[in-house]
Amino acid sequence: MIEDKNISKTELGSLGEFGLIDRLTQNFSLKNPSSILGVGDDAAILETPKDQQLVLSTDFLIEGIHFDLSYMPLKHLGYKAVSVNISDICAMNATPTQITVSLAVSNRFSLEALEELYSGIALACQAYKVDLVGGDTTSSTSGLVISISAVGMAKKEKICKRSGAQNNDLLVVSGDLGAAYLGLQVLEREKQVFKANPNAQPDLANYPYLLERQLRPQARLDVIGLLEELSVKPTSMIDISDGLASEVLHLSKHSGLGFSLYEDKIPLDPSTITTAEEFGINPITAALNGGEDYELLFTVPLEDHPKIKANPNLTVIGFASNKTLNSVLIDKSGENSIPLSAQGWNHFKS
Amino acid sequence: MIEDKNISKTELGSLGEFGLIDRLTQNFSLKNPSSILGVGDDAAILETPKDQQLVLSTDFLIEGIHFDLSYMPLKHLGYKAVSVNISDICAMNATPTQITVSLAVSNRFSLEALEELYSGIALACQAYKVDLVGGDTTSSTSGLVISISAVGMAKKEKICKRSGAQNNDLLVVSGDLGAAYLGLQVLEREKQVFKANPNAQPDLANYPYLLERQLRPQARLDVIGLLEELSVKPTSMIDISDGLASEVLHLSKHSGLGFSLYEDKIPLDPSTITTAEEFGINPITAALNGGEDYELLFTVPLEDHPKIKANPNLTVIGFASNKTLNSVLIDKSGENSIPLSAQGWNHFKS
Repeated sequence: MIEDKNISKTELGSLGEFGLIDRLTQNFSLKNPSSILGVGDDAAILETPKDQQLVLSTDFLIEGIHFDLSYMPLKHLGYKAVSVNISDICAMNATPTQITVSLAVSNRFSLEALEELYSGIALACQAYKVDLVGGDTTSSTSGLVISISAVGMAKKEKICKRSGAQNNDLLVVSGDLGAAYLGLQVLEREKQVFKANPNAQPDLANYPYLLERQLRPQARLDVIGLLEELSVKPTSMIDISDGLASEVLHLSKHSGLGFSLYEDKIPLDPSTITTAEEFGINPITAALNGGEDYELLFTVPLEDHPKIKANPNLTVIGFASNKTLNSVLIDKSGENSIPLSAQGWNHFKS
Repeated sequence: MIEDKNISKTELGSLGEFGLIDRLTQNFSLKNPSSILGVGDDAAILETPKDQQLVLSTDFLIEGIHFDLSYMPLKHLGYKAVSVNISDICAMNATPTQITVSLAVSNRFSLEALEELYSGIALACQAYKVDLVGGDTTSSTSGLVISISAVGMAKKEKICKRSGAQNNDLLVVSGDLGAAYLGLQVLEREKQVFKANPNAQPDLANYPYLLERQLRPQARLDVIGLLEELSVKPTSMIDISDGLASEVLHLSKHSGLGFSLYEDKIPLDPSTITTAEEFGINPITAALNGGEDYELLFTVPLEDHPKIKANPNLTVIGFASNKTLNSVLIDKSGENSIPLSAQGWNHFKS
């Protein structure tokens, strides 16, 4: 659990800003035809294919807020930072093509630590077939700050926004929910155990799926391909970064509709259910408010139901049920409608 | 000098992340036809006009590293953060079109402080005719971190890289150099005076140009227009963020050429010269190594000399003199060639 992040130490000051960028990006090459010029100039040059539009997203990951290096291996962090951004591109129903990565690092990081971070970024670039085309590297007065921008491209008529859902549309989610949040609970518990007794062996082997979901999430680029295959174009879409409840409310606000969700339809992995029990957490609460699942949430017209109903990657969890902004969770009895409220993580609440 | 940054205090925690983004961006509207969708979805949507390519750049500005809030008004900081990024787009000979702005802020900032920052960003968006189309807002464990990505567009054949300079090309710079660095010296001196005696009146009135250059630099979008007017397409171009010497060496490395610069041709404002004297600094050193001038440095073929020689905005300061990477400064006597070395600011040197 607690890895040695400073195997060998080359101080960053010995390289300088340009030496550092050159060193970290030396093994990256451009693979997409839309990447005309990559790292090393004042700006990258991109070419959008004819009839396509470009989508652009940006996200911060900040040490002490979004990640804790005491249990987040740097390589995984690099991978996750890219996934989080690629997930936004997927949420537009676009194909990710390029990223830029900017780092602010304090002097406590060695070159080798940053190379480890970049090895995870490189793996993610391979997995998502995107090119690293730019970035900025500077020092920070405290901790590590990662800022990634992601670019994707798609035909204009294929792009999905948060708005566009129609009344009676089905609400569909990919994969399962709540696992990343429970992975975080496991890691936090083991951190406390380790703090109390540094010789204690961390108890992580029993939670492989939950830890994978927390430490190395996958953006659902495969679902974008699947939708294309199934000839399904969502009427609205968003990725689940802050918890299902918060994202449903975003779709609701942007589309001007209220949704009804069925509690017993929310997809949960068996290990999410057992671990939630272990922690005394309702797994539905983990799904609604936990966040970091990076699954896709979207709406499709009722007539598309036959196309998706048998797919193991997709679950219909509700529908757009009214033209107000009132969304509800219908409990397992089917008798109680609980108003949905976003209890997603508010970074600014102390 | 020392302004009250907390005129009125609305705590960020009372708004939440989404409330904050909505509030800060509510007065921004999309003006460029290439901006299809702005802030508020998972990603912005852009459309590159036919036959054009897109350029993308990103830069960090970090409190305590790139700016000091004890003398940098937040409105100016917002303006400068945009200028720095637009300058990169100009350096590609492209027209800036969109920016995204991501902020990490600690709880010590109030909503009103961030609104002040965004008022500067809004002014810059107006000045450069760019649209704010996205961003991320999160908390930080310490200080303020700004990450901006800038997008520009240009016809493929118009775009300039750092590579492309040819032997005997003229080396040209816009505006004058060294002033921003001296502005910083003035501000640092007054900060020390203020620390020693908080009742002392800051002595800033005598340095309007230098302070403007440091606190509110302009990206030279006008020069991009001027080059178009003059039918000059630079063979290579870069913007001066780290000092003239560092940028000449970048053009040298990317183009595979050495440059000769004439010390007596380097453009200096009279106030740069007098203030450099006051501080016991060689103004040429301020120009070579000071940085933050955000002027454009470019090369043009010798035959373009008639087109630029009479222009008050442009100065020929040297030429590509050899096919090695050895660049020199020829001193005022014309007899001594001093090898050029980048002493630009190394963020990682402690």
